[in-house]
Amino acid sequence: MVKTTIITVGKAKEKFIRDGVAEYAKRLGKDIVFKQISQSNKLKESKELLQAIQSHKAQFIVALDEKGLQFSSVGFADFLKKNQDLPFCFIIGGPDGLDESVSNQCHLKLSLSTMTMPHELALLVFIEQFYRAQTINDGKTYHRV
Amino acid sequence: MVKTTIITVGKAKEKFIRDGVAEYAKRLGKDIVFKQISQSNKLKESKELLQAIQSHKAQFIVALDEKGLQFSSVGFADFLKKNQDLPFCFIIGGPDGLDESVSNQCHLKLSLSTMTMPHELALLVFIEQFYRAQTINDGKTYHRV
Repeated sequence: MVKTTIITVGKAKEKFIRDGVAEYAKRLGKDIVFKQISQSNKLKESKELLQAIQSHKAQFIVALDEKGLQFSSVGFADFLKKNQDLPFCFIIGGPDGLDESVSNQCHLKLSLSTMTMPHELALLVFIEQFYRAQTINDGKTYHRV
Repeated sequence: MVKTTIITVGKAKEKFIRDGVAEYAKRLGKDIVFKQISQSNKLKESKELLQAIQSHKAQFIVALDEKGLQFSSVGFADFLKKNQDLPFCFIIGGPDGLDESVSNQCHLKLSLSTMTMPHELALLVFIEQFYRAQTINDGKTYHRV
């Protein structure tokens, strides 16, 4: 499988989030690479994220944005399967979300919810969906496990 | 404040979920009452949930359902504020979700996401939104805390 990059801003403060993300990261194994931008202010974060986008421009870059496109879990799995040769790069903003200057540079905006989640919880929800998508594409019945 | 009931099915298996839910429950204080239906099979769970609905019928009952109504966080806070005299009861199904025989007995179906989340994670996402709604209505700036 092509490696997937997840770019986040800052380290999760809450231990339960770090534990949850670590659990799904463990299940996903070596196919996931995390890249962390330091948390500072939106302007500085945006500048660093734009640089990160530049250095990942060969990848298909997806911004997590509550105003983005909504998938069902099966639809998201299908989207990943159809594009399985593409190296994906997912970007999750900091406490103030992603600036439009960043999300507009991405190939797709993906919405996990119309509700605003803390960026840390968004990472947990996202990585669970990404893991779920793998199990759907692999024909595993993870939800009953 | 009027007490809010959250009815769930089974105990969360993942410690990080229990820790996360406990954190928001602590912040919400005594205004939240949890009621737990034992996890078994969908038929038995549905029967117990219908009994629970019957015993909470004086409350405004909301089923968490991915096909339900989508709110923004501010919209959800506003909805709760407008109905602050109502005792709310939120129901989150088990691993197989809520049966329609249950969700159709509720006053409202609320969708946290078009994606299917594990029921445990749905509880965590929901309780965070419920806490967020309180902070929005109280004029607190929790998201930067």
